[in-house]
Amino acid sequence: MTQEFASVEEFCQILQDLPGEDAAARAAASARNEALTKPPGALGRLEDLAQWYAGWRGDPRPMIEAPQVIVFAGNHGVVAQGISAFPAEVTAQMVANFEAGGAAVNQLAKAAGARLDVHALSLDRPTEDFTKAPAMTHGDLVDALKAGWQAVDPKSDLLVVGEMGIGNTTAASAIALALYGGTAEDWTGRGTGLADAALAHKAEVVARAVETHAACRGAGIEALRCLGGREIAAMAGAMVRARRLRIPVILDGFICTAAAAALQSACAGALDHAVAGHVSAEAGHRMLLEKLGKAPLLSLGMRLGEGSGAALAISILRGALACHSGMATFAEAGVAEG
Amino acid sequence: MTQEFASVEEFCQILQDLPGEDAAARAAASARNEALTKPPGALGRLEDLAQWYAGWRGDPRPMIEAPQVIVFAGNHGVVAQGISAFPAEVTAQMVANFEAGGAAVNQLAKAAGARLDVHALSLDRPTEDFTKAPAMTHGDLVDALKAGWQAVDPKSDLLVVGEMGIGNTTAASAIALALYGGTAEDWTGRGTGLADAALAHKAEVVARAVETHAACRGAGIEALRCLGGREIAAMAGAMVRARRLRIPVILDGFICTAAAAALQSACAGALDHAVAGHVSAEAGHRMLLEKLGKAPLLSLGMRLGEGSGAALAISILRGALACHSGMATFAEAGVAEG
Repeated sequence: MTQEFASVEEFCQILQDLPGEDAAARAAASARNEALTKPPGALGRLEDLAQWYAGWRGDPRPMIEAPQVIVFAGNHGVVAQGISAFPAEVTAQMVANFEAGGAAVNQLAKAAGARLDVHALSLDRPTEDFTKAPAMTHGDLVDALKAGWQAVDPKSDLLVVGEMGIGNTTAASAIALALYGGTAEDWTGRGTGLADAALAHKAEVVARAVETHAACRGAGIEALRCLGGREIAAMAGAMVRARRLRIPVILDGFICTAAAAALQSACAGALDHAVAGHVSAEAGHRMLLEKLGKAPLLSLGMRLGEGSGAALAISILRGALACHSGMATFAEAGVAEG
Repeated sequence: MTQEFASVEEFCQILQDLPGEDAAARAAASARNEALTKPPGALGRLEDLAQWYAGWRGDPRPMIEAPQVIVFAGNHGVVAQGISAFPAEVTAQMVANFEAGGAAVNQLAKAAGARLDVHALSLDRPTEDFTKAPAMTHGDLVDALKAGWQAVDPKSDLLVVGEMGIGNTTAASAIALALYGGTAEDWTGRGTGLADAALAHKAEVVARAVETHAACRGAGIEALRCLGGREIAAMAGAMVRARRLRIPVILDGFICTAAAAALQSACAGALDHAVAGHVSAEAGHRMLLEKLGKAPLLSLGMRLGEGSGAALAISILRGALACHSGMATFAEAGVAEG
């Protein structure tokens, strides 16, 4: 069932009526876990991951067979403020690179056996400079949420959403500041590689943006609209669609997690079907994950976006399910239980 | 070239004449890394891994195509001291489980596209109880080192060595204590799941073993012989053979790392061709990795052995190489360099 939405209000209503996990499948997976040929708990977090995934898929013994990685791209009016080390043209250039198979996420998706889809969202029409006006109209936001919603393949059994958008760490920092408070410096990082002076300027832009849009404070969906971008909103739309379809999600880096935080702010528990794929080197990501209560699977100093860290983490989840669903039980193997 | 050895002395001579990495291949890989379509450093540790692997393989743009996982199994006389939660019969039962494809490492090797070999080493002839006598004679040690040496497929391009042996965390703790000092409690963990009283007893056994074999202190190969076991020595032999063949190694958990530490003690730099796949939940593993100067790729609370954590980490290294060798350069993709 594809229950769509025609307005921000209708999207918010969907958020208030999200499905939960299948408790019976999870309990059956837990019972299976206890019977597998290993000392209790010896697979550590892999055991938790397998049971979590089983609950969301409604299958006590599932495998990951059809992971989908979606990269959304958008352009940002706030680049006029000089907050990125790269020019805005790079967004479209990198989309071409994704389409030609040359970017990091192409290699990581392929290595993980995942399908990769790329959606460029009105790159010739950047969002407004959010230091001066809301980044998007309500109509723009709905369009972006829908682009994400429609991009999810209902036959997928795992979803990674990634992004490309010069300027979008600035947007993510502004969303985080609006949702959680603190100072702009707490949430502002070097993005693709800013030096110290540029970093201080970026933090000042973030602070100014949140002052300009005070109604966004603690209001996730309005923060997406005023401080976000099309690719950020699309990631949020895709994550909600995945929840409706009970497709588990692996979160990527700071920008993806900011989209998740906007949903969590609008509806506690909206990300229960998601795990954090990694903690990136972008300042603020670790703290943002802590706010969401998500412990990262990987910590490898990555800071690329594109869904790259989450795509790499697919293999961890796949390994967890391979063990859970493929191992023999003590009874099957004739092994003493200690 | 398979230069074998007929004695412990000859094995030690091999350790003194290990090949290094290919500096030209590494430099070429580093130059390639700088040209790829990503901000400098944005793939974090994946970039270091790819260059390290390229250097050891002597190929500036390699892929991982033939990983090999080898599980060695051995039995330990020290189980007579009551140091394990599982009976010694479980070693052979788990070997049968490996051979039937039912264990965790079978699933993880398969998920990583790796070949899995299992070598049971004289399971009906446990090592001596090392609280009373050296675990192995010199001849036993040579046989075990050779078993490891010969198990490595020269056509492999990545090696994981794992182990199964009821009682072998006790042996690994004794080796670590002999090599690095401290207290037995520092190095002794719960293994497959000991309660507090049994843990204290195990530490007492470890302390007594090292007192009995004082000549092992700081002497890696003698520690392998007096305090180790056949599967631990075989892992060491396999790691040295891999070094001779310039096949990179991913270290597994506490027991595998103890074998590595014995080599490092005998020859500084003997493990330069190895990375730490994970840090396990077994007490002492983190400290042992610090002694070796190895930062783990994964930290997921695993504590199973079998090569399971390292097998899971194959995907991380494979992802690093997929990016390094598969991505487009800025020039190829027509992307501005910021």
